[in-house]
Amino acid sequence: MLIQDLRIVVICGGVGAARFLRGLLRVANPGNITGIVNTGDDMRLHGLAISPDLDTCTYTLADAINPETGWGLAGETWQARDTLERYGGQTWFGLGDRDLGTHLYRTQRLDEGATLTEVTAEIVAAWDLGLTLLPMTNDPVRTRVTIESGETLDFQRYFVERQHQDHVTSVAFDGIEAAVPSPGVLDSIAAADAIVIAPSNPFVSIAPVLGVPGIRDALAARREQTVCISPLIGGAAVKGPAADLARTLGHEVSATGVARLLADVAGHMVLDSIDVALADAVRETGVTPTVTDTMMRTPEIAAALASTTVNAVV
Amino acid sequence: MLIQDLRIVVICGGVGAARFLRGLLRVANPGNITGIVNTGDDMRLHGLAISPDLDTCTYTLADAINPETGWGLAGETWQARDTLERYGGQTWFGLGDRDLGTHLYRTQRLDEGATLTEVTAEIVAAWDLGLTLLPMTNDPVRTRVTIESGETLDFQRYFVERQHQDHVTSVAFDGIEAAVPSPGVLDSIAAADAIVIAPSNPFVSIAPVLGVPGIRDALAARREQTVCISPLIGGAAVKGPAADLARTLGHEVSATGVARLLADVAGHMVLDSIDVALADAVRETGVTPTVTDTMMRTPEIAAALASTTVNAVV
Repeated sequence: MLIQDLRIVVICGGVGAARFLRGLLRVANPGNITGIVNTGDDMRLHGLAISPDLDTCTYTLADAINPETGWGLAGETWQARDTLERYGGQTWFGLGDRDLGTHLYRTQRLDEGATLTEVTAEIVAAWDLGLTLLPMTNDPVRTRVTIESGETLDFQRYFVERQHQDHVTSVAFDGIEAAVPSPGVLDSIAAADAIVIAPSNPFVSIAPVLGVPGIRDALAARREQTVCISPLIGGAAVKGPAADLARTLGHEVSATGVARLLADVAGHMVLDSIDVALADAVRETGVTPTVTDTMMRTPEIAAALASTTVNAVV
Repeated sequence: MLIQDLRIVVICGGVGAARFLRGLLRVANPGNITGIVNTGDDMRLHGLAISPDLDTCTYTLADAINPETGWGLAGETWQARDTLERYGGQTWFGLGDRDLGTHLYRTQRLDEGATLTEVTAEIVAAWDLGLTLLPMTNDPVRTRVTIESGETLDFQRYFVERQHQDHVTSVAFDGIEAAVPSPGVLDSIAAADAIVIAPSNPFVSIAPVLGVPGIRDALAARREQTVCISPLIGGAAVKGPAADLARTLGHEVSATGVARLLADVAGHMVLDSIDVALADAVRETGVTPTVTDTMMRTPEIAAALASTTVNAVV
């Protein structure tokens, strides 16, 4: 079967997933691609409904992501933040003026009774992305981390405000027991020819998606068609606190550790060439390894990675 | 008594009140001035708590009002609106990027449990205005107008989106029966040496303030210290739909009509020199007229008007 004809589902966090999707869009048919995106990072701030991972995926695929920050929109200005600063308001979470329009729109539509699924589809259409992005759930799930001091923080407080400098001793997803997969999530997993777990943080980006009741089982039922890309390369994260979290949460800080974590849902793993020595250890966890270049320095490398990843399971 | 030593209360709508307050600040002691501001125009849009009259007063007094529009902030940009437009979102209510910071701050503080009184004080302090601005109430009151077609519209839909082109057959203030004057409102009226009803729209800016249970009675008890400035000059409004509303709601379209409307609370009226011929008719309504230049073309004229107005009742 040609990759163009394959139905492909990608389990997504933020930056790593966005770059993978950008590569995948070059080799697969956008109309056949569904991203299922973490919403555990979502929050209400200043009254606005903010969905960081959905927006990072959208802006990246629209080639509109702010290249200076890696989040928000290119060509950004900061006038609203300047006014907030005058009032001593909360400016720790960067909201550029252009980006604000997305949050205004999402909030208005949610207040009108639209679901996050519907609003996301509208935003994706407005940017002409072609693929489908689904929030993992339309129910509120909030990722919270407990740090060494015993304090529990909302995820963005830990991740953005405190720049993930704290040692995390546990992670919880408030509300997840009552959450339901959003419409299309389970069907797309069941119908997929290939399912990719993007190289996103396993503990705070992938875990909430898998934690929505029904999703982990749906993936486990498709284990042979499911492949994860290790977000740890040479024992380190490309970006963010994945390695720190693996360490403080008691996991092996390597692709092997990630393979073990996901072995019940992903029968395959793509690991970086630098980790070729780990291939046997990965295989011993019951996961079939594929070794290739996973550092998505350019969209071309991301496209090659997407092709290799999908081919590992079809 | 010197005007500097007088405690002065001003009942306020938007632009006319803001210009009057700017004049008053030049002749009186800011620490002795309290503006009680209409919040019937307030709304939630895009999830944000928007208080147009409070902001018009604040921005005008801060010399930060957008001179091109008469609302919002000077030096405004429109990036958030451009993003909203991409999504086909609601852009009929102009929210500039700088202005958005105020709404973000207000919404966040209200969501944290602060009252509108508290947030307003914080915003006024951040702009170093010196005076006190009080919302008429901290309870939700929503001005709604019924138009000739029988349709009922939220005030901003009528005023901004449809540019007050409809003929209004009735005005209602939803929630007003249950509203309570905000802290300080009744006390400041009771303690005032002079109370000014600003030249704001009597039907949609002043009427909601007077409609909050307790405020009309408090003013009536101070009728001899209360003076209104006619917002109708030569039978026309300086700005906005006051004359149209007077006509369609069945009132005389003149300063005399306004005097009659407010005769129970204001024992005095300041009317424009152009309306000198109406002085006797105003007196016949039981209201003592003072005639002067009321067109606030410059802050100096506004200051002279403020001085004349206050002196009419002390």
